Amino acid sequence: MSEGTKGLSRRDTFMAAAVAAAGTALPGAALAAGKAPSRKVDVVVIGAGFAGLTAARELVRAGRSVVVLEADGRVGGRTKAAMLAGERIDIGGQWVGPSQTRLLELAKAYGVTPVPQYTEGDNLIDIGGRKARYRGEVPGLAPADLEVFGAAVARLEAEAGQITAPRPWLAKDAKVWDALTVETWLQANVPSDPARELIRTLIRAVMSSEAVDVSYLCFLGYIASAGGLGPLISTRGGAQDSLFPGSVWQIAAKIADELGGAVVLDAPVSRIAQDERGVTVSSAKGAWRTQRVIVTVPPAMAARIAYDPPLPAQRDGLTQRMPLGSVIKVVLAYARPFWREQGLSGMVISDRTDFGPWFDRGTPLTRGGALVGFFDGAPARRWADRPATERRAKVIEDIALYFGDEARRPVDYVEEVWTRAPWQRGGYVSVPGPGVLTGFGPALIEPVGRIHWAGTETAEAWAGYIDGAIRSGERAAREVAMNA
Amino acid sequence: MSEGTKGLSRRDTFMAAAVAAAGTALPGAALAAGKAPSRKVDVVVIGAGFAGLTAARELVRAGRSVVVLEADGRVGGRTKAAMLAGERIDIGGQWVGPSQTRLLELAKAYGVTPVPQYTEGDNLIDIGGRKARYRGEVPGLAPADLEVFGAAVARLEAEAGQITAPRPWLAKDAKVWDALTVETWLQANVPSDPARELIRTLIRAVMSSEAVDVSYLCFLGYIASAGGLGPLISTRGGAQDSLFPGSVWQIAAKIADELGGAVVLDAPVSRIAQDERGVTVSSAKGAWRTQRVIVTVPPAMAARIAYDPPLPAQRDGLTQRMPLGSVIKVVLAYARPFWREQGLSGMVISDRTDFGPWFDRGTPLTRGGALVGFFDGAPARRWADRPATERRAKVIEDIALYFGDEARRPVDYVEEVWTRAPWQRGGYVSVPGPGVLTGFGPALIEPVGRIHWAGTETAEAWAGYIDGAIRSGERAAREVAMNA
Repeated sequence: MSEGTKGLSRRDTFMAAAVAAAGTALPGAALAAGKAPSRKVDVVVIGAGFAGLTAARELVRAGRSVVVLEADGRVGGRTKAAMLAGERIDIGGQWVGPSQTRLLELAKAYGVTPVPQYTEGDNLIDIGGRKARYRGEVPGLAPADLEVFGAAVARLEAEAGQITAPRPWLAKDAKVWDALTVETWLQANVPSDPARELIRTLIRAVMSSEAVDVSYLCFLGYIASAGGLGPLISTRGGAQDSLFPGSVWQIAAKIADELGGAVVLDAPVSRIAQDERGVTVSSAKGAWRTQRVIVTVPPAMAARIAYDPPLPAQRDGLTQRMPLGSVIKVVLAYARPFWREQGLSGMVISDRTDFGPWFDRGTPLTRGGALVGFFDGAPARRWADRPATERRAKVIEDIALYFGDEARRPVDYVEEVWTRAPWQRGGYVSVPGPGVLTGFGPALIEPVGRIHWAGTETAEAWAGYIDGAIRSGERAAREVAMNA
Repeated sequence: MSEGTKGLSRRDTFMAAAVAAAGTALPGAALAAGKAPSRKVDVVVIGAGFAGLTAARELVRAGRSVVVLEADGRVGGRTKAAMLAGERIDIGGQWVGPSQTRLLELAKAYGVTPVPQYTEGDNLIDIGGRKARYRGEVPGLAPADLEVFGAAVARLEAEAGQITAPRPWLAKDAKVWDALTVETWLQANVPSDPARELIRTLIRAVMSSEAVDVSYLCFLGYIASAGGLGPLISTRGGAQDSLFPGSVWQIAAKIADELGGAVVLDAPVSRIAQDERGVTVSSAKGAWRTQRVIVTVPPAMAARIAYDPPLPAQRDGLTQRMPLGSVIKVVLAYARPFWREQGLSGMVISDRTDFGPWFDRGTPLTRGGALVGFFDGAPARRWADRPATERRAKVIEDIALYFGDEARRPVDYVEEVWTRAPWQRGGYVSVPGPGVLTGFGPALIEPVGRIHWAGTETAEAWAGYIDGAIRSGERAAREVAMNA
């Protein structure tokens, strides 16, 4: 072994091989003129979010040559970093919970350590016209409403317990549950206005959709996928337990660095053409010839690729019926975390404001104070196409309603209108309405010839989360390995 | 005036001008290399179905230069002709009703005359386990069930009466109606199993969707658009009143002939790029520069075009939430219309078969007998991706269940799996689930800069029908004329 390669681990050698296999770019004009692609890889992965990067990493570690084609000019998919008051923060997915073991392990492998979400002090709740301060995870509703809420949660958990993620359509009562919206279920089963309104607000917060948009079966499936409603909605011990100083996005960036030239940015894929011997994938950066393709982008975005031969009716039909939720994420920096001085945790759940919920967003890196919050569902739809200055004014007005005039003087402000992001067009996840999972569900995962489907929507656990994206990428890599 | 042009009407001169303006094709390679398109027209119309052809016809008559870019290798969109036992028949949209005045006028203008749907003899109904023969438009349910059905129809008509098509989201109770599926409404309001099952079957027949898929507001809007449930579901006097010997499709073909070289086939549009001074539309047959674009393809197909700048969040969100219904159409020819000899009309409504409803499809051109029928909704999903031979066997098995062994010997058979048609991917119409019309409805019609939206989904009357497509094309042409 020469001095030059002495320091390279076995994995590094695989990486170097994969990068070499990805080859060099053909000029687009040559492709347009109909020449066959000269670049060959074992697997083409479409999308450089956590699902695609994980799939590529697994395949490269197994000795396959891979190229990851990313439409956007960056990696990370529905995670993304932004600079706020000198700190790199997440403007996409950000949290991690204790049962999200695949994300925790991946973070550890790349030397990135989460810190707990700040939860000291009182949360504020303002639902159904009643304001309250409360501590911990039990929302501050009036006792009678809280009792109804508790019974609803118990029933949701019990029914979700009859579902095996990621195949809710196999549940005994799937057809009944998939015939109604969550809103219909609320009206029939939750006899308290504030309890119903709280659940609507939670649906908005966890699925960035309205209760009228969501199939009740889909909601149960989402709960099952998270291992319960508690894990889904809780901060401490739940999906919002911890976050990453310097961003969770940096993990995606580190995987991409490791994959090196195998990740091709600004390469939206226009066409996937299968024939008897393989697949040709055409992108804005030219074409690749391959044996297998893993499509990791959400179904509604995968629909925007042309397929030859055309997709089966069931798969195409699914892609017409899996809209992404509507979300705008905002992070604000303040000179001080002044709410902490008022004994507040920074967390506010309100049905009175368009902006919200919001949370303290401090990390050990944060010099002053920071808040993170969302326009979700209908408010996201109302605000997405308006000028940024109007959105900012609304955010600050809403925060000041609970936190006072000090909230009017942020020192920095960043936002991401995910429904306007050209290659995501929504977030956090695809949310089917009634009839879709029972009518088209199997097409979410079933391969089409040499095309395999990944992405957080397909995960066997934590669908809709970064952890689910990672799991789906690993599963797709295994599928490809079995079929090669 | 020279002898050569003496015979040309004023309209013909406009046509010739439009065709000349459409210019000649640039080689694709030159476009790929980034050259500006040399072909300029006043308006680019995308889609050569009835909406697009009508819009182009109107614009050309108003003196505008137009090109119609059609992705498919034929015109007609969701209408299409096929040969059955020597007769040209429709394998897509086919019927016309007396209030579909725009289609009737257009047919007249092109010398195409409808003939009444055959309705002599008894219809068969087999719903909820009870078979019956009946005559006329009142379905043969048991009296108690018929009473419930009648009350349901009255309530549907009354509530639809509160809706102004094409904007159901403006109705006072829109939010309530858009929060539930038709299935939920049935369970709460129709206390008879057979009446509910009949309405489910009718939803399948008129929207090619399941009752669980459809927002109750959408269903009311569909009824309002047709001027009532009677007009929607009836043969005599309704939307199935008459059909066209030689196909309704021939009207589309005649308009296309008149437009001549302005209609470009096999030209899927990949990109619509707007700038301050105009629009560049890129297709597989090269690019056009224009002032206005009319997109007539359904929202789910329009989503598969790239837009620069990207579409507003509301419009993009809509395109993720307007799936096309699921339909397979089948037409069979027999040596004789043997059902007529049994005193049957040929019409069968059944919830026992996957195939159905079906109807007599005879016209004065038909030598023997012919039947036309559908797999709609869930049955269409079950059968679309199976081999054609299995579908044919199922069709014949289902027909023989009611018509006996003679049904097993068709002399010809044609089918169209609309959910597999690459440029339609479903039919007859886009059917939104709950939350979509109230959440995104206005984006169905509101122009985006220089892009205008047409297609039957946008029609102020008879949305989902050829008549609605024509109306939408006329409206879009007026919009463009007002804005130019």
